[in-house]
Parts: sequence; C-alpha cells; structure tokens
Amino acid sequence: MWARGPPEPRRRRWLRALRRRLPVLGWLPRYSPGWLQLDLIAGVTVGLTVVPQALAYAEVAGLPPQYGLYSSFVGCFVYCFLGTAKDVTLGPTAIMSLLVSSYAFHDPVYAVLLTFLSGCIQLAMGLLHLGFLLDFISCPVIKGFTSAASITISFNQVKNILGLHGIPRQFFLQVYETLRRIGETRPGDAILGLVCLAALAGLREMKSRLPPASHTEPLATRASYLIVWTCATARNALVVLFAGLVAYCFQLRGSQPLTLTGSIPQGLPPCRLPPFSKAEPNGTVPFGTMVEDMGVGLAVVPLMGLVETVAIAKAFASQNDYRIDPNQELLAIGFANVLGSFFSSYPITGSFGRTAVNAQTGVCTPAGGLVTGALVLLSLAYLTSLFYYIPKAALAAVIISAVVPMFDAGIFRTLWRVKRLDLVPLCVTFLFCFWEVQYGIVAGVLVSGILLLYSIARPPLKVLGQGTLLVQPGSSLHFPAIEHLRDVICSRALSAAPSPCSIILDCHHISSIDYTVVVGLAELLQELRKHGISLAFCSLQDQVLRALLAADLEGFRHFPSWEEAERCGGAEPGGSGAAPFDSTSTSESSLLHKGLIQ
Amino acid sequence: MWARGPPEPRRRRWLRALRRRLPVLGWLPRYSPGWLQLDLIAGVTVGLTVVPQALAYAEVAGLPPQYGLYSSFVGCFVYCFLGTAKDVTLGPTAIMSLLVSSYAFHDPVYAVLLTFLSGCIQLAMGLLHLGFLLDFISCPVIKGFTSAASITISFNQVKNILGLHGIPRQFFLQVYETLRRIGETRPGDAILGLVCLAALAGLREMKSRLPPASHTEPLATRASYLIVWTCATARNALVVLFAGLVAYCFQLRGSQPLTLTGSIPQGLPPCRLPPFSKAEPNGTVPFGTMVEDMGVGLAVVPLMGLVETVAIAKAFASQNDYRIDPNQELLAIGFANVLGSFFSSYPITGSFGRTAVNAQTGVCTPAGGLVTGALVLLSLAYLTSLFYYIPKAALAAVIISAVVPMFDAGIFRTLWRVKRLDLVPLCVTFLFCFWEVQYGIVAGVLVSGILLLYSIARPPLKVLGQGTLLVQPGSSLHFPAIEHLRDVICSRALSAAPSPCSIILDCHHISSIDYTVVVGLAELLQELRKHGISLAFCSLQDQVLRALLAADLEGFRHFPSWEEAERCGGAEPGGSGAAPFDSTSTSESSLLHKGLIQ
Repeated sequence: MWARGPPEPRRRRWLRALRRRLPVLGWLPRYSPGWLQLDLIAGVTVGLTVVPQALAYAEVAGLPPQYGLYSSFVGCFVYCFLGTAKDVTLGPTAIMSLLVSSYAFHDPVYAVLLTFLSGCIQLAMGLLHLGFLLDFISCPVIKGFTSAASITISFNQVKNILGLHGIPRQFFLQVYETLRRIGETRPGDAILGLVCLAALAGLREMKSRLPPASHTEPLATRASYLIVWTCATARNALVVLFAGLVAYCFQLRGSQPLTLTGSIPQGLPPCRLPPFSKAEPNGTVPFGTMVEDMGVGLAVVPLMGLVETVAIAKAFASQNDYRIDPNQELLAIGFANVLGSFFSSYPITGSFGRTAVNAQTGVCTPAGGLVTGALVLLSLAYLTSLFYYIPKAALAAVIISAVVPMFDAGIFRTLWRVKRLDLVPLCVTFLFCFWEVQYGIVAGVLVSGILLLYSIARPPLKVLGQGTLLVQPGSSLHFPAIEHLRDVICSRALSAAPSPCSIILDCHHISSIDYTVVVGLAELLQELRKHGISLAFCSLQDQVLRALLAADLEGFRHFPSWEEAERCGGAEPGGSGAAPFDSTSTSESSLLHKGLIQ
Repeated sequence: MWARGPPEPRRRRWLRALRRRLPVLGWLPRYSPGWLQLDLIAGVTVGLTVVPQALAYAEVAGLPPQYGLYSSFVGCFVYCFLGTAKDVTLGPTAIMSLLVSSYAFHDPVYAVLLTFLSGCIQLAMGLLHLGFLLDFISCPVIKGFTSAASITISFNQVKNILGLHGIPRQFFLQVYETLRRIGETRPGDAILGLVCLAALAGLREMKSRLPPASHTEPLATRASYLIVWTCATARNALVVLFAGLVAYCFQLRGSQPLTLTGSIPQGLPPCRLPPFSKAEPNGTVPFGTMVEDMGVGLAVVPLMGLVETVAIAKAFASQNDYRIDPNQELLAIGFANVLGSFFSSYPITGSFGRTAVNAQTGVCTPAGGLVTGALVLLSLAYLTSLFYYIPKAALAAVIISAVVPMFDAGIFRTLWRVKRLDLVPLCVTFLFCFWEVQYGIVAGVLVSGILLLYSIARPPLKVLGQGTLLVQPGSSLHFPAIEHLRDVICSRALSAAPSPCSIILDCHHISSIDYTVVVGLAELLQELRKHGISLAFCSLQDQVLRALLAADLEGFRHFPSWEEAERCGGAEPGGSGAAPFDSTSTSESSLLHKGLIQ
C-alpha cells in the first residue's frame, strides 16, 4: 500500500486545506493569556530593534530613511496570518538592502516596483509548489550559514559599541578598519555597550538557572520569582529602556557622550498602487524600460529573499522543535512583498538578527508581529521623538547577545564523527559567508548538490566471486551511474586472468530505472556476449522488470534470486538446469502480482 | 570485496595509462590495409565537405574566409592521436561560429585569443577529471538533440538546394523565408541538388542490400562486387566530383546555372604565438582588457565546445557500438584548441554534420582525420582553384543524406513503452533545439537533472500494517528526502484513527545516510515520542548503523530484521520480549563484521 492518508470527509479536508493556507487558524483558537504576555514582550523588543535598524538599512539601500520604516510593518502583519514559523520576522535586512542598492539605482520608484515584481515571482513559486526546491538546502549548509552569520552580524555591531563611524560593510575590511581605528573608540558608547552586554548575559544566565515555579511556595517567593522571570525575559526591552533613560539624562545635562539613533521623519506612508512608470524631466520612463533596467535583479532579489527566509525559518524551527511548510513560507513572503509595495516598502525578507531576538525573548506565536507592526506604525505617527534617545551601543548589545548563541562550534566535531563528507559543504558555506552571505549559501547548496549527484553517479557496487561474478549495486541505478557500472563490470570481467563465464547482476536494491540505464544494460549484454560471457539478472523489483521487458533486450534472462541464477547452470547460455525466466517465456502479469516486499 | 582491479605489474600499469592518454597506441598496432582504404575514402569525403563548409562558417563567425580553413586541419591531426571516438571530426561548426561572432567582435585577434583560452580551460577540466560531469547528459537528451539537429541541419541546406540567398539562420525564420521565397528557386541548383540526393539515396540503398562477398565466387563477380561496393562507399566524393564536372562543363560553355563555392584565398597560415595584446591606432589593448571584453564568452565557448563534442561522440559511439572516455575527449578538444591558436584557428568543436558523413562513409579509425587535415592543407596551398567549381547544391545533398538517418522517430514509441517520464527531457530537448541547439541541450540536461533530483527527494515509500506500522524506503535516503519521510510517517502515525503504538523503519535498501538525514531521524524520534509512539530501526547496513550510533540518538533502538522488531513486544518502550540492540548495549565492532550481503 502506498503512502496516502485515509479518506477524509470533504468538509474536514476543506478545513485542513484552509488551515494550511492560513496557519493563523491553527494557533489562534488555542491562544492562551500566558502566550499573550510573552508575545507582547517579544513584539515590543523586536519593535525597539527594528525601528533604528530600519533607518540604518534604508541608508544601505540608498533610500531616504523613512523607507526603512515603511518596509517594517506590512511584513509583520502578513506573516502573522500566513507564516508557519513562530520566530521569523519579516522586514528590511542588511543583505536585501545591499541588493536593492545595486538594482534600484537609489530611486524609491524603482525600489517599490522591484518589491511588487519580486512579490509576484515569489507568489508564483509558492502557487506552483516549487517549495520542494528548498529541501535541497541541507543541514550542514544551514549550520554553516548560521554560524558565519552570527559572527559577521556580531562583528558588524562592534563598531556601534565602540562608537566608530564610516566602517565599511565587507567583513574583512570591517575587521581591518575596526582594529586599525580602535584608538578612536568613544568611551561613553563603549562603557554603555559593555554594561548592556554584561547585563543581558547576566539576565539570560539567571533565566536559565531559574528553578521551575511551584504553587505550593509562599506568595512572597512566587512574586519574587515572577519579577525575576519578567526581568530576564524582557531583558532586551529593559536594557534599551535603561540606556535610553541614561542618554536622556545626559541630554538634559547638556553633554552627550553617547551616539544616539537621532531624529526620524514623522507620518504614515500613503496607500497607493506601486508605480508602473516613472516621470522624469525629459519624459516618462515606461514599465518595459524599468524592467529592463532592473534586469537580473528580478531573479536575484526574489530568490535571495526566499532562500534567506526559509533558511532562517528552518534554522529556528530546528532549534525550537517545530516544522515549517516551505510552500506556505513562499506565499507569505510573496504576499508581504506585493502588499508592501502598496505602502512604499522596498523588498523585505526574514531578518536573522530580529528573528534571533524574537526567539530569545520567548515569542510563542506569530502574533508578536502584530505588536511589532503596531509599534512601527505608532512610532511613525507619534513616537519618533522618543526613539531619538536610544543609544546605538545598546541596540548593538541586544543584537550581539541575540546572535552569539547561534554559533555552533560543536557541529564540526559532530560531523567528523557522523559523516565526514558533510564537513565540505559546512566549511564552504561557513567560509564563503564571510565574503558575502548570499555567495556562502549558493556555494554551499551547489557543493552539497554536487556531492549528492556524485553519490548517485557512483553508487556502491559489491563484486563477489570468481567463476561466476555476482555484482550488486547498493542503491537504485539512475542514468549518471550506468557508465560507471559498465566500466566496473567490463574491467572486472575482461581483465581477470581466468575470465568469468557468467555474471549475475543482483538488482535487489534497485527500485526504478530509466531509459538511459536500459540502453546501457542492453549495450552491456551485447558487449559481454561478444566476449562469450553471459549476463543474468536476479531479484528484480516489479517496476524494473516491467521496464526491462518492455525494452525487449536481446538475451535478457532473469531469475527470482541469485542462488537460483547460480544454480541454473551458472546462467550460461545453453546451460542445463531449470529454465530461467526469459523475455519470451514469461507472463508479465503473473510477475506483477507477486508480493510487495520481496 | 569492493570493486577494484586486481594488482598489476608496474610496467603494465604504466603502459595502460599511456594508452589511455594516447589512444592512437591502441589502434595503430592493429591497423590493417582494409581499414586504410576506408579511412582514405572517408578522409577525402570529409575533406571535400569541410573546405566549403569552413568558408561558409567563417562568414558566420564574421571573420575573413581563410580563417575557416585555418581552423579545419589542426583538430583533425590532434584528434587522430588523442581522440577516443573513431567517427568524430573536430573543426569549425555552425553553433561555435555563431558564438565566436558574439564574443570575438568580428576580429581575428580576439577569435584566436579566445581559441587559446578556451583550450586552456578545456585542458584544465580534462586534467581535473571533470569528465564525469558529462555522465549527466542522459540518453533522451542526446536522442532529442540528435533528432532535432538532423532536422535543422537538413533544412539549413534546403536553401542551397533551391539556390536561395539571404535566408536567416534561426530555424523558424528560415522555414518561413524559405517557403515564402520558394518561387525564386534557381532551376539549375534545384535539379542538380535533387539528382545528387537521389543518387546518394540510391547508392546507400544499394550498399545496404549488397550480399556479403565470398571467396568462392568467380573473379568477374568479385570484381563487379568491388566496383559497386567502392562506388556505394565513396558515394559522397563521387557525387561531389560529378557535380563539379557538370559545373565545369557549364563554365566552359560560358553559362552557369549553378551556385558555386567560389574562389578561396591561397596559402598556409603562419605558425606563431597567439596574440596576448592588440595594437590599435590609439594604443595597445592589453591582455586584461581583452579578457574583460570577452567576459562570459570564456565560460560559454569552452563549455559548449565540450558539450557538443561529447554529445556527438556519445551519440555515434552508441550508434556504432564503441565507448568513449569523456576525460580524454576533454584533453583532445582542449589540446586541439590550444595548438590551433598557434595556427590562427578560431574555436573548434565536434561537427555533427561531418561526423555523420565520416561515420556513413565507413571510417575505421581516427586516421581518417589525417587525410582530411592533409587535404585542407593541400587545398590551402594548391587546390583552391579546383574547389571553386563545387556546386553548393551538391554539398547540401551530401549533408542532408548524412544527417537524415540520424532522425529517430521510434524513440518516442520506445520511451512510451519503457519509461514515460523520460519523454519529458526528450521533448524539451527536441523542441528547444529548434530555437537554439545550445539552449536545447542545456534545457534537456536541466530537466533530466530536476527529474533525477525529484526522484531522490521523493523516494518510493512502502507503508504497511495498522497496529505496528512498517515503513520501508525503496532506495537510499539522501538529505532532500528526509522531510518527505517525516511528513509521510507523521501524517500516517498521527492522523490514523486508532493511532499505531509503534513504527518500524526498515532500512534494508538504505546504503548510506548523511548528517541531515540523521538530524531528521533524531527529530522524528523525538516528535513520535511526544505522542507516545515508539520508532525502531531494522535491517541496518553497517555504514548506516555506524553513522546512527556515532550520532548518539536519544531512544535509538535497532533490530537485525523487521520480524524480530515486530516480535520484540511491538518494539514498544518497556515491552516484554527479547531485548533489542540499543545504542548502549551493542558492541559496534561485532556488527561491522557481519556478512557483506544481508
């Protein structure tokens, strides 16, 4: 019996499909007040991170700072309804901002059109169920990407802790410049940053050592437990609030030793159709020309958006023991981009840093995104004056303490023990990610794909015996493997000193074959026959037998088992013994009704 | 015992390696006078085809006509020593000429440098043993390419038979223009072309019906047999000679109703280093700038050269029952290009049309190439005045009658019977080849690669039983398959009405696993345990068992067979019965010494 669910009533099937498309229906009915508290804290913490980050990333993308905030709320709302990973937060990211700066020519009109078109491409991929392509991102690639990203993102924040300006974005240049200019460190930023880091590390340590609360304890113990737990869980928001107060006090006293986030333009973005042409002083640039101008960006931006989102979703899903639906992730990110383009957003994707903050703060459902989105809208409308005082060093400390635990040094040892070959994609991804994160992921996927294809092209072959050679492929034969199989059989059969009189090919592990393999086997039969060696097949599975019978190979003979093939006169042409099945004497249908497991 | 040759004496191994690198050492000692005759005829016939083709292709490449001839002899000489396919002839081709016209800017200096650099890249691929990449060109792709190429190449020659000029190169435009302008047909060309086609078809038919000669027949019978055989075999050369004489007679009478090949510039090319810079009126263009100018052409040209050569070599090797060594083919084509660049050649590759002529004329060894090469050199030095009279219609007839038999209509029926899924890459390749041949091959390889990866990502899974679920993957588990396996097991285990109490995973067909699979299985164990369902493994192969033991999975238990797993208390945690092997109670080394076939 092949894997298929039992029959379901139509209504239930329909409900299941709806729940698959709107994952919010899965968690909303089970929503508990305990979750609300945690989601609220996480949403606020992420919101406090995303606002200054959005402003910084808009500058990376070469757009006016408010576009960063315009890009930060739609993704949160959409993902809350359509996302399948509780931790992921969509929004502007460093990598995507860089790509936008290359393909949108520092022009908001191009950036918003790019958002719309990328979203459409991502939606189309989701609707065509191309999500299975993301199964090809293997665990070593994700581990390599995560570990490298945790290092680069942390180091990227060191400049904010030290209060340095004008540090380049590229990792190696960044390390060089940061070390070279370490003498220019601003003491205020450095002290605040290190205090925040220490406070965050201490609070996290406290939370991990907190014994589970019990209802039998006295009220005072329970109340103090609750206070400690709240402080430890909302530590990111607390630290940022504390740092903001410190900065505000300095501001009141008239001297400011800290680097602040600075002023943010106020007001919500307009809701309007994305621009399909651009008015210029010397005439209108039509849609076609704009698309041509963006060129390959229309492939790179949506694909990198998907890869980043799903890689992050997979990493956090595996860390926090839940599962994601890649197709649904494509739909979520695609819809977020399409809808975002109506609110002047530039292309967004899953943010590694903020997702880590979200997970660390203990978010329970994607509802945290609603809080984050609302906070961004509120800040755009009213609160920009308050965010002014957030010191950059405190935000850097929040990000560093969120991403450092993602570095997994043990993976190298684990892979050495379990599967050494998997160290290759791990190391390739890890090292290339320091150059550019997108190159690292692409190189890692390519390397693991090549290793996968190589293992298919060179399946394990067992060769036994002298007079009668028994050859057993260890796995299915796909077309890239047939040349190798022919090489091995021919070199063993034709170079051995006493040439074997017959060869038995044990097809026990072969579950399906393709036309190239059939042709290769036909040529092998012919080649061996020229040298007076017979070739018999044994233990064929039904599907394989059917294909070989349909191909009507010359001299094709098969036996139910290799013992029988060996017994039947060494399977020699004209040998005595029980008659083998051959392509003329066998009733195909009788063979197709044999047991399923043989 | 794993597949490896028996130990060889060192000298013999060395000789074998040398014969592998210089395939000429394999066939030269066995060379017989009978072969010489056939090789001579084939060499002359190919030579008579290559000279006018070379002139035409040079025009396609946007270079002066003599560059076509300069590119036509080095490949023949080199391939004679280094090639592994007897039929393949290297030289200028339509596709390569088109690519050269895009990347060499109609400038011989760029073209020759492109030849040198492409050759270096091809040599490097050969030395790095990247030839296995060509195993990924499957039989349906080759069949689709061959069938489509036979149609496009034939139709490409129809304009020469009809005497039409200025027909575009693209297939669909060509068909449209040829049909639209069919009224402009030149009667002389058309009559000569059709006569030549009929003569070639008749002579081929005659050869195929010729009974085998026997030494007991009278001398007169044997002599007439020899004459018919020679005429039929050298039919291409004979037809071209006859047509040339007809054209010469018309020329003597002063009226010429035929389109002739025309005059060819005389003289051998100089032997000199390829140009590494270019002198221009306003200064020298340095090497770096030239490389930058050619850009992506440095990847496209060598790769298309390899794909074309190996696809053709594979197609003819399979048709004529011999085998090629893809790595050696890379070395041959690479060396031919590097050496060619010293003789002002533009990039060359395997020619489908001339290879077909070569095979049809009955060439026995690559020595035919020596004759072709010599003929090209002779024609450059002395014979250009004679080639002047070859009518284009006669050459068109030679090419058409050579490529038409390559069309294999039966392949569609065969694939329908043997493996329907393989019709997809076949049709994709076939149809795309009409657009552009290189797109067809690339699309076919991509489609067959995607189908291959899909079959790996979705291996066949057998699911049996109710209380105890037996799950058996039909082939090895690679990383893209693990999510699917988890989905199937979870949906069966958690959605069934009476939830099964235990699941047995039969790993009988799994020959190796990777880290991603190990992680997936660990997560599956954990997920099922949360729902109170136990998971046991059975029939593990040694390598798989070793990896799972090394990963130290929580709750990992395994049994030698599924009967035993089922017997042992349904494999339930705490179930009664014989104690299963578990990761703590098993001595690993004892398991590694079990029989090889289990």
